[in-house]
Amino acid sequence: MQISTAITCLALICGSSRPAYAQTRLSREWLLTTDVYGNPLHQRLTVSVAGKVLSGTLDGDAIAGTLSGNHLHFIATDRRKNMTEVDAQLQGNEMVGELTVTSSNAPGVHAKRAFSGYALQVRPAGPPRTVEFKPERFYNRFSAETAPAVTIWPGDTVHTQTVDSGGVDEYGVTRALYGNPQTGPFYVGGAERGDVLAIHIRRLRLNRDYADSLDAIAERAKDSRLATQAKDLGARVRWRLDLDRGVATLSDPTAHLKNFAVPLKPMLGCVGVAPDFGFAPFSTGEEGRYGGNMDFNEITEGSTVFLNVTQPGALLYIGDGHAAMGDGETTEWGLETSMDVEFSVDVIKNHFVSTPRVETATHYVAIGFAGSVDDALRRATSGMAQWLQQDYHLAMSEIAIVLGSSAEYRIAEIADRDAGVVLKLRKDLLRQISNPEK
Amino acid sequence: MQISTAITCLALICGSSRPAYAQTRLSREWLLTTDVYGNPLHQRLTVSVAGKVLSGTLDGDAIAGTLSGNHLHFIATDRRKNMTEVDAQLQGNEMVGELTVTSSNAPGVHAKRAFSGYALQVRPAGPPRTVEFKPERFYNRFSAETAPAVTIWPGDTVHTQTVDSGGVDEYGVTRALYGNPQTGPFYVGGAERGDVLAIHIRRLRLNRDYADSLDAIAERAKDSRLATQAKDLGARVRWRLDLDRGVATLSDPTAHLKNFAVPLKPMLGCVGVAPDFGFAPFSTGEEGRYGGNMDFNEITEGSTVFLNVTQPGALLYIGDGHAAMGDGETTEWGLETSMDVEFSVDVIKNHFVSTPRVETATHYVAIGFAGSVDDALRRATSGMAQWLQQDYHLAMSEIAIVLGSSAEYRIAEIADRDAGVVLKLRKDLLRQISNPEK
Amino acid sequence: MQISTAITCLALICGSSRPAYAQTRLSREWLLTTDVYGNPLHQRLTVSVAGKVLSGTLDGDAIAGTLSGNHLHFIATDRRKNMTEVDAQLQGNEMVGELTVTSSNAPGVHAKRAFSGYALQVRPAGPPRTVEFKPERFYNRFSAETAPAVTIWPGDTVHTQTVDSGGVDEYGVTRALYGNPQTGPFYVGGAERGDVLAIHIRRLRLNRDYADSLDAIAERAKDSRLATQAKDLGARVRWRLDLDRGVATLSDPTAHLKNFAVPLKPMLGCVGVAPDFGFAPFSTGEEGRYGGNMDFNEITEGSTVFLNVTQPGALLYIGDGHAAMGDGETTEWGLETSMDVEFSVDVIKNHFVSTPRVETATHYVAIGFAGSVDDALRRATSGMAQWLQQDYHLAMSEIAIVLGSSAEYRIAEIADRDAGVVLKLRKDLLRQISNPEK
Amino acid sequence: MQISTAITCLALICGSSRPAYAQTRLSREWLLTTDVYGNPLHQRLTVSVAGKVLSGTLDGDAIAGTLSGNHLHFIATDRRKNMTEVDAQLQGNEMVGELTVTSSNAPGVHAKRAFSGYALQVRPAGPPRTVEFKPERFYNRFSAETAPAVTIWPGDTVHTQTVDSGGVDEYGVTRALYGNPQTGPFYVGGAERGDVLAIHIRRLRLNRDYADSLDAIAERAKDSRLATQAKDLGARVRWRLDLDRGVATLSDPTAHLKNFAVPLKPMLGCVGVAPDFGFAPFSTGEEGRYGGNMDFNEITEGSTVFLNVTQPGALLYIGDGHAAMGDGETTEWGLETSMDVEFSVDVIKNHFVSTPRVETATHYVAIGFAGSVDDALRRATSGMAQWLQQDYHLAMSEIAIVLGSSAEYRIAEIADRDAGVVLKLRKDLLRQISNPEK
Repeated sequence: MQISTAITCLALICGSSRPAYAQTRLSREWLLTTDVYGNPLHQRLTVSVAGKVLSGTLDGDAIAGTLSGNHLHFIATDRRKNMTEVDAQLQGNEMVGELTVTSSNAPGVHAKRAFSGYALQVRPAGPPRTVEFKPERFYNRFSAETAPAVTIWPGDTVHTQTVDSGGVDEYGVTRALYGNPQTGPFYVGGAERGDVLAIHIRRLRLNRDYADSLDAIAERAKDSRLATQAKDLGARVRWRLDLDRGVATLSDPTAHLKNFAVPLKPMLGCVGVAPDFGFAPFSTGEEGRYGGNMDFNEITEGSTVFLNVTQPGALLYIGDGHAAMGDGETTEWGLETSMDVEFSVDVIKNHFVSTPRVETATHYVAIGFAGSVDDALRRATSGMAQWLQQDYHLAMSEIAIVLGSSAEYRIAEIADRDAGVVLKLRKDLLRQISNPEK
Repeated sequence: MQISTAITCLALICGSSRPAYAQTRLSREWLLTTDVYGNPLHQRLTVSVAGKVLSGTLDGDAIAGTLSGNHLHFIATDRRKNMTEVDAQLQGNEMVGELTVTSSNAPGVHAKRAFSGYALQVRPAGPPRTVEFKPERFYNRFSAETAPAVTIWPGDTVHTQTVDSGGVDEYGVTRALYGNPQTGPFYVGGAERGDVLAIHIRRLRLNRDYADSLDAIAERAKDSRLATQAKDLGARVRWRLDLDRGVATLSDPTAHLKNFAVPLKPMLGCVGVAPDFGFAPFSTGEEGRYGGNMDFNEITEGSTVFLNVTQPGALLYIGDGHAAMGDGETTEWGLETSMDVEFSVDVIKNHFVSTPRVETATHYVAIGFAGSVDDALRRATSGMAQWLQQDYHLAMSEIAIVLGSSAEYRIAEIADRDAGVVLKLRKDLLRQISNPEK
Repeated sequence: MQISTAITCLALICGSSRPAYAQTRLSREWLLTTDVYGNPLHQRLTVSVAGKVLSGTLDGDAIAGTLSGNHLHFIATDRRKNMTEVDAQLQGNEMVGELTVTSSNAPGVHAKRAFSGYALQVRPAGPPRTVEFKPERFYNRFSAETAPAVTIWPGDTVHTQTVDSGGVDEYGVTRALYGNPQTGPFYVGGAERGDVLAIHIRRLRLNRDYADSLDAIAERAKDSRLATQAKDLGARVRWRLDLDRGVATLSDPTAHLKNFAVPLKPMLGCVGVAPDFGFAPFSTGEEGRYGGNMDFNEITEGSTVFLNVTQPGALLYIGDGHAAMGDGETTEWGLETSMDVEFSVDVIKNHFVSTPRVETATHYVAIGFAGSVDDALRRATSGMAQWLQQDYHLAMSEIAIVLGSSAEYRIAEIADRDAGVVLKLRKDLLRQISNPEK
Repeated sequence: MQISTAITCLALICGSSRPAYAQTRLSREWLLTTDVYGNPLHQRLTVSVAGKVLSGTLDGDAIAGTLSGNHLHFIATDRRKNMTEVDAQLQGNEMVGELTVTSSNAPGVHAKRAFSGYALQVRPAGPPRTVEFKPERFYNRFSAETAPAVTIWPGDTVHTQTVDSGGVDEYGVTRALYGNPQTGPFYVGGAERGDVLAIHIRRLRLNRDYADSLDAIAERAKDSRLATQAKDLGARVRWRLDLDRGVATLSDPTAHLKNFAVPLKPMLGCVGVAPDFGFAPFSTGEEGRYGGNMDFNEITEGSTVFLNVTQPGALLYIGDGHAAMGDGETTEWGLETSMDVEFSVDVIKNHFVSTPRVETATHYVAIGFAGSVDDALRRATSGMAQWLQQDYHLAMSEIAIVLGSSAEYRIAEIADRDAGVVLKLRKDLLRQISNPEK
């Protein structure tokens, strides 16, 4: 059932041209979907045909095989010598067939499964495009089972909008179910398992004059004394967004707060990609290694977010704009509002980040998410250590010295299921690192 | 035993003048020490004599009584109607006597104990002084049982030095036992239980050209991956302090770090006061509600630290200067060095801070210390809420709004027994709060 | 799309009898599904017809309306005076219509949505049945969007099987995707939002002679020293299950462990219900307030699990049997094996448990799940306090006394995303509590 | 000052016999105390004299030197080739002299310090004794600076009493300051740095008919809901101890609890030794690697506690008896009462336990203490792994298997500064481990 759903959805991203010959039709990118005990496994296939000889990749592993009329047969072998044998019949832009997996550990055991596939849109010729995307539907999960809304390519820029966390758009119209409904998913051509997706927030602008927050204090911030005093809180608080002055003020302030104005600093609460096969789609209220509801107030215009790709096309979602937010989102809601967004994407091939990363104008930032602030701190530190190893080839002793002298730790998020801690390093300090290996 | 020790010590702070008449001698401040099952209880007594009538305070509670020759008798009554009856004999600048405590809950039960007392130095006439203090001995505990090194008064400024955490002074001479040996304690005249001590760091300057750190990664920052990779770390790392350029560089750098320079930002790792009666002295490696080894890298020149007073004279200690330190002190040592320090003190009468506070040029900061980062976060938040209640009379709903929009959370310390989290609020934002109650 | 999926699925639970008259057909239970911005909202409708007058409940709220031929119209009103107006057309065992929701806060705003509904199977006459259920498909999520596999009623007993966490059944055949694939979901007739489902584990028996575990140590259990020493662990460990002796031994033991035998104590790692509307389905590797992968080694034969119902029919899933398991599942896998299971269900109307509960032969147990052991402890304690309030009418002071003298805290689970802590109280001690309010 | 204090104290443990010749006098055990920048360093010296040749140990390191009349000179060398050169003059049972320490890292640097020493009591001939110890004074710190109350030897049994946590004895008389005042310290002859002290609780009996507790709920156990509901708790609760029935009942019960009786299970809340040089004495309200206020309700009659020795004589303290206590001491006080205690001690030479251990009739128990339950769990696990390595020579993979199948985790203490988690393993299961290395 979920498989057929996926197939229907993916039809949206198929090209419409149907070339005359199998060779031509075949020599492009395909998305294969296999039913594994009721769970859809998506794989990316690239094929080149030279006469009857097939080459290419299946989720990055080299394939070798043959083409006979509309029938193709090939074997993909991964680094551990596991083999996937594929037999398929071409039908225009589609193929159906059977996939036999043989583990190198158990060469006599073969798992055979039906699959179907579709040809992906071919990348338009010419320079990167700007895609205008008007979302019609919004999604409440980060999922690989949702049909891509649009296909984009590395270098492309997307101009679009996000609704607020309650599903309300720039005109005050409720368009989606509360809980951070997302714009997307964006299928990024060429992105596949083992890559990292870079999302550059080119422009992030407010597009209405109010935001909603709460007067709550998050559970993680309350000791007994605060809990007792804050027990009746949780009311909605409306903010007026004054774009001219660049501040937010309370719509209905108390006497104490009648002059209280906070600087506008538009941010995207959610930037996430679809989780890996074998992992359930996750709520747009959650966050983790796939990004998601990170609620980090430095994901602003000019910043870049880095996330691992584990599904063909990455399947990027964005949403949950805040006009401003204190660290930790202690009120459970930031200043929730709709947003006008422009972003572009890049794909870093064969890369891996143990935890989401952000680059701002001044800092490199590793974000750790975990069920406690303590464990989030561990992940942020480990993630930054990995970054310094990858990009600067530092030994652990050198990493210790850099962190001990220069680390900036902030608590980004405490209101969600996972807490978020960021470790920031100044780019100007890191530029002092000599890199003899390069 | 500990009592007699205390008495010997406190002799150091006695005035030397011996007026001719008991009335004159008596009308000043006294420090009483009572042995409570082997534990020294220090109390501050102020006395005024009008004829034979005594008035004044005992640890802030009003007293009433009489003077007959060298014999005085009075009763102090606290808010809960507990009574302390005192009978004493004056002997120059000393008194000895008996103290009978009667709880309002058990009026028939009386605890009678011997005490002795000494007259405090009278505050010198004239404007606040600058005291030059050359430390001869350094202390490895924050304790009420250590003799005050010098008595100062609100408004006074002290110029002194601190040795580094290993006990080494500005000349490279080891002067004290490793483990953050402290300069002090400073007895602040007039400070008593129920007050808050404000310590203004007027000047904080490096006085030698090197600092020592480690290449460690603190246990709280390591996940399994980091733990495995960092298992052989922990070596000493020497830094060269270049006061002209305002940076620290490695004395013996690796190729990668040969140009790595971090800005100097001298800070005091330790600012603490003696703990309350009934609490053990605590190690200069620890921190908590009395301050201590807070290791917060914004306790720099120009900042003010606020700590509760629970002992007569507060008994202030300072030490553990760092030339620079990343957030969290992830290397377990900052850039440890000796320091030239100038600070002044103020006493805020009848005040209470649930957690240490710091005021910097730009921010108000509440620091929470606890055994986990999660609980430290709770204490910092609760401490800031209290501050906003005390100084701005905000309701909890208003506090939630201010925090949710403007909180800045940093992780200050993860290397010590307690973790430290700071909640910072910009002073310019708080100046917008209207305060109709004032 | 997800709506149509749900409708197809629910057809499986429809009765097949088609009575002649609308009144008769209507007077039973219905499951309505409404599309809320792409998210399926399931509601349970009960209807009684007296002439043209309709009465009954919609998710527990009283309804009032009329029937005219095949057209029905009614209004449901909840405690907060929110109204749901329904207009529908009967078509045999199905109905389609429109649902208009009016919030009492915003009487002028109406949300109108299409819905469709199906008549539920009528409860068979006679005493509770024993249902033999042979699972054909297994599920890797706890979800309200999965079609019920079978409908059962309070008092009914189900006899069924579970595969092991890797999807392998009692014959060694892989039947499902790894990751705790579940048997179910079981639709419990009469269960609706606001109820509590009691699941009695009547029989829990091993049905094969081996189990698989790992030699891992969970991340939450490792300090730096253990992390370093355990860095190369994670291999699969096969256990032989000796049902005669009642022990498990290693299939391929080291010299040290050649005589090491642990007592068999079969348990169900997973017992869970579908999450509420607005919450994403959750992975069968996770746990929380809906139960799920609780991995508590006292969920054994003879125990009862209590979980909140938030979806019509509760939608119960079971799986992940362990032949034995130490506290905490420190090896990440228990002794994973397939299982022969018999359980019965009861529905406690209008009840609420803040956290899952278990009753064993000797104890009442509240289980807290959270991202840290510390927070799980808080939830377990709060859950037990609620239990003592609900069933014994104790005041908080009395609860404190009972816990302080008699609490037993165990750490149940540390290997999953959430940690689990249980607070146990002996039933014989609680029987001493007098209960004058009853 | 602290040095002279120590010297005075130690005089209490000196033998009174004064042999005629230096050789004879010298050939015994000595306690040396050196002033290290105001901090007393205690060392244990054993000497044998053969003619003029001296041999023996200084804190376990071999010494070699000469005796000339009353002047002795020797050098002690440790494993890292650091040398301590000693020059001293004998004066009866005392010696005074100078100690020069040369680090192998810095051979040219010598630290020279004055020390004084006293001869320890010679162990009485014959079998182990039973020592009757009537405490006159009680101590509120675990400290190496407190004079030993009595010297005992491995194998000796002590019969003594402890007062309750409020300092009240078996007759209802207040004898000490509240806060777990301790009986002791007991100087264990022969125990020195690098050993482990085993404390066998031979007999632990109630000696009065009441106990005091609170109706509090510890901060670590409260979520927001509980915090709000429990905000007015904290009152004292008196229990009647019925030794005949073996239960405790409330002295002034509510209607609900009028029949509520909990089984008596006397336990020692505090068993601790003095901390190492360089560490501050710690409060009797705290716990950690030196034991202390562990509050584990299985430290009962018949159990054995294992603690590292870091000071000559170990300096053992006991106190804080509870008539019964739920896990975690959630009420902050157990059922606090005075106790009649009999214990014996053994010394395991050259051993190390990373965390306190307990052996009960049925289990081996490792206790982890840390600022969070999460970190305490890590330490308990690491401590048990170490035990299995030391006593069973298991590889980490084997340890993982034993823990995964058989671990029992309980939360022992949540009311103190550190939380305590215990990991228990059944002794009968461990007896199955083959131990070919032995």
